[in-house]
Order: sequence, then structure tokens, then C-alpha cells
Amino acid sequence: MIPAERVALTLGDPNGVGPEISLRSLERLDPVRRKRVIVIGADVFLERLFGGLADVKLLPVNVPGYRVRPGIKDPLAGEAAYRCISEAASLALSHACGAIVTAPLSKETVVSAGHPDFVDHTTFFGRAFGVPDPSMLFDAPDMRVILATIHLPLSKVSEALTRETVSRAVSRALDYCRKALGIEKPRVVVCGLNPHAGEGGLLGTEEAENIAPAVLAFREAGELVEGPLPADTVFPFLRNGKWDIAVAAYHDQGLTPFKLLHFHDGVNVTLGLPVVRTSPDHGTAWDLAGTGRADHRSMDAAIDLAFRLLDASGK
Amino acid sequence: MIPAERVALTLGDPNGVGPEISLRSLERLDPVRRKRVIVIGADVFLERLFGGLADVKLLPVNVPGYRVRPGIKDPLAGEAAYRCISEAASLALSHACGAIVTAPLSKETVVSAGHPDFVDHTTFFGRAFGVPDPSMLFDAPDMRVILATIHLPLSKVSEALTRETVSRAVSRALDYCRKALGIEKPRVVVCGLNPHAGEGGLLGTEEAENIAPAVLAFREAGELVEGPLPADTVFPFLRNGKWDIAVAAYHDQGLTPFKLLHFHDGVNVTLGLPVVRTSPDHGTAWDLAGTGRADHRSMDAAIDLAFRLLDASGK
Repeated sequence: MIPAERVALTLGDPNGVGPEISLRSLERLDPVRRKRVIVIGADVFLERLFGGLADVKLLPVNVPGYRVRPGIKDPLAGEAAYRCISEAASLALSHACGAIVTAPLSKETVVSAGHPDFVDHTTFFGRAFGVPDPSMLFDAPDMRVILATIHLPLSKVSEALTRETVSRAVSRALDYCRKALGIEKPRVVVCGLNPHAGEGGLLGTEEAENIAPAVLAFREAGELVEGPLPADTVFPFLRNGKWDIAVAAYHDQGLTPFKLLHFHDGVNVTLGLPVVRTSPDHGTAWDLAGTGRADHRSMDAAIDLAFRLLDASGK
Repeated sequence: MIPAERVALTLGDPNGVGPEISLRSLERLDPVRRKRVIVIGADVFLERLFGGLADVKLLPVNVPGYRVRPGIKDPLAGEAAYRCISEAASLALSHACGAIVTAPLSKETVVSAGHPDFVDHTTFFGRAFGVPDPSMLFDAPDMRVILATIHLPLSKVSEALTRETVSRAVSRALDYCRKALGIEKPRVVVCGLNPHAGEGGLLGTEEAENIAPAVLAFREAGELVEGPLPADTVFPFLRNGKWDIAVAAYHDQGLTPFKLLHFHDGVNVTLGLPVVRTSPDHGTAWDLAGTGRADHRSMDAAIDLAFRLLDASGK
């Protein structure tokens, strides 16, 4: 299947920085690409804010009573954010778009709008497309990390880190590097779970029981997969190009080093869905909303990556 | 008590990079400080390598049969490393030195030399001085991190992270900033244990049960302590100077971001001992030993910090 070539851009919580960073990113986007964008946002400002951008298609959502109040946590704004991503999922399911870029929303305002089961974009789209185990990957030019487990209490990570979980992350990492980066033989490093990657069993057994066998299977299949290695020594060498991507065992292990360097320009990618999905790796930034000072680099990178992934998947 | 003003420098595993980085650091050390150094190392090369440095005092250890073989893991080299740190502890216990700087050794070669209980420098000196709970702190000009728990399997961290553990780390962090950095009102940030610092209980309860009460007690005592905050958003702001030091809940949470930026120039500091103890934050680097290519910046910084801490403690 050749995916639909359009990219849906959801504006997120309209009281957050989503609309302004999206506008600035679209203004500087290559016109050939811009023609392929569908912007989904609250009708009260969509035409006014984005109407001047030639060629961009607008898809308004209506939330009765909502009015723009930058920086304010408002259930009606949460509802607008929710309707944007619902529309994007519908477009994708009907093959009217092949990629979704999401501006930040707030879990809190979406939940307060009457969607108590809402967790995050990743989980929302997983459910919308019937995918139980989407993966979170973070992409920056000098560093890529995929998480083997996502939003779990730290004490639950050990039991969740099965051979299957690790294998799925490695497999998606390989696939991502091939498709997104065009690397024929991607070099993948897998982090250990414990300090010093378990130090030969003295500091934990998960490495020997689950991670090492998963790595070995990929090596036996001819893939360039290394590990498990101590997480605290992986990242400086990942950054220097020793590997193309790292598999982190859990949320903070991957995101703490990633965000240290890429808080303002990192991209969050969801893998495992039938469509491309990217987003900036930051939140609504209530304190910056409406000031014009929000940094749009992360959104620029998210849009660029969505186009690259979509165009690569159509080849 | 005014501590002894001498600094003992142990050369670590003599087949690793310890001797060469120590020599290069001492060559460029301020002569006033150099006069205060006691170098402890294997007798077969100590005089030959360090004899040319005016004013440095040499303390040889003898291991019958040992001969220098750079890059080779040798039980006799492990024994030499062990005797160096034993001598340093003896000097400190007899008040002949007030600070110990340790070049890297290998747990593996020390254990193979017949010291099965050896874990690391931190634990060794803790036992030598009768301190059951020394803390590990990592220092670089733009980032300081202290670990609330050290070498534990990840699945054991939750139960070890008590209110007392967190309080001890915060207390030592405050003390360190006052003594080492001369900051009257240090700004401390405490990381959460779970993703998003537990997200209000949805992703873990340790934050509410143990970390937040510990932080609150310090705030009520007038200290500038913040947290628990999500670890993945702490470090970019720590680096930009928002706080003077971070308290990490566990080994990789603190060390992964620290080593990403300071793999070659970070200093490991042991807190809680009756003497100052610092070291480079890297290992023996077998592959570089004897090549002259090992980076001595971390050792430079370790020696400088030992002098600063020692001189501040005597004030």
C-alpha cells in the first residue's frame, strides 16, 4: 500500500504554544511540502491564524463556548485538543493522510474535558489504530533512542522487560534506521537495566536472562546489535556516532540523556502504527503561550521527519 | 580538628592508565600544591616515573613478582592497586593526609588478587573508616549530582529510597555546596524516582510517600530544596544554572546524563568520610594504557577538587 501523501498537523491545546509554533514552522516550510499539509485546529482562530498560508488545507473543529486564553488550563481547550487528534485519526483511517504531526496538549485538560482514560498521544493513536504496543522513539541528528518500556512505575520495569519487549524495540529500531535514515546495516546498542549492566550478575540478572538472549538472536541473524552495555557509558559514544540508535530499557534511562541535549529540538516518533506520527518532545509550555517566545525548532524537526518518513514508506 | 594538609594520590592498577595520567597531572600542578602530594604506587616504577618531580613525596608498595605490562589484567597488578589504597587509608587514619585521590583500578583484578569482598573505592574507604553509608557525588563545572542510592539492582531501588536515604543525600548536597563551592544558600533539586516524577501517583507512589516529605522538611528549615521533579526535565536546567546540585534517586539516573557530557573530565567525590576523597570518573582504560593517549583532564579536576575541599574543610 502506498500511503496517502498528506500530513495532518494537529494544533494541540489551543491555549498552549501549539498554534504559534505550528504557524512559525509552516511559514518556513518548503512550499512543495506545505501543499501537502492539513492543519486541524479550533475554528475560532484557525482561519484567522493560518488563512494567510497559501496552499495549506484547514480542517476546523468546533467546541461551543471555547475562546482563546493563552496560558489558561481550560477543559474546553482540552476538548478542542482531543477533537483535533480524533479528526486526525479519522483522516488516517480513511487514508486521507499518511502522517500525523501533533502539537503539544495537556493530559490534565483533556482528562478534565471528560476523557478520563486519556494517557498521551502515543496511547491514543495506539488505541485508535488497534495497536496494543506502540513504541516511543526520540530522534535528533546526533542521537536516537527507542524505549523498550514506556510509562511504568520504576519498580515495574524489571518484570515488563521481557525478551519479547526488548526484541520488539530492537526490531523497530532496525526498521526505523533503514526507513528513516536509509542505513542498510544499522548499528544498534542495547542498554542494560541495572547499574554497570548488572556487572556480571552481581547487580541484577535481567541482562543475562532477557536482554542478552534477545541481542544474541539478532546477531545470529546477521544484524549489528551490541549489548547490553551500561547505560551511563552508552550515550557519549552514541552521540559520537559509534551506533545509529540506542534501545533504552525504560523511560528515564532514555529520555534523561536525550532531553539534556535536545530539550528544544528533539522529535518524538511513534512506531508500530499504520501511519507516521511525530511530535515535538516538549509540552504546552503554559508560561510561554501567547508571548511569541516559544521555540519552534522541535516542531520544525517533527514536521521534517514526518515528511521524510512518509516519503520513505511510499518507496 | 584541622585535617592534615597532605593529599595522598594512589596510582590505581599499574597496568591501567592511572600512572600516566597521574604523572601528567602532577607535572602541571601548581608547585605549592605539589609539595603537599604523596604518590603511592608500585615500587618497580615509582621512583623512575615520579622521581623527577621535585617536592613530591613517594610511598612505594612492594608486590613480589609484579612487573609492568600495560593493558594486561594481572592479579599482581590488582594486588598493587589494593595495597596503594590500603596505605592511603592508613595514612588518613594516622592523620598523615587529609585527602585521598585515587587513580582507577579494576574490581576484577583486585578480586582476582584474593580480595573477594572488594566492591569499589567508595565501599572500601567506607569500611576502612567505619562509615556504613558513604555517598557518591559527581562534580563538573556545569553540573553536580549526588546519588541517593548507589550500586543496587534497579528493582531494589524503590525499597531502598526511604525518607532517610533522600534526606541524607540532600543534607550532604547542601553541605558540599557550602564547603566546596562556598555557596551560602545552595539550590538543590531532587529527582523523582518514576517517569514524570510519578505523575501525581499514576506512575508510582514513592514521590508522595518518601521524596516529597523529605524535601518539605528541608524547605521548612529554610533550605532552597525543590522537587521531586521529573528526572528527564531536570538536567538541561541544572546545566543552565537553575540549581547548584541535583539529587538523583539511583545510579543510572544521575550518571547517565552526567557522563554524557563529562565522560572525560568529571570527578567522583565520596561524601560522608572523615577525609576528602576524589577520583576521575573513568576506569582503567586498558586499551589506552601505555599509549600516552589517555586523557588526564578528569585526574586534573580530581586533584584540584581534593585540594579545594581539603582547604575549605580546614577553615
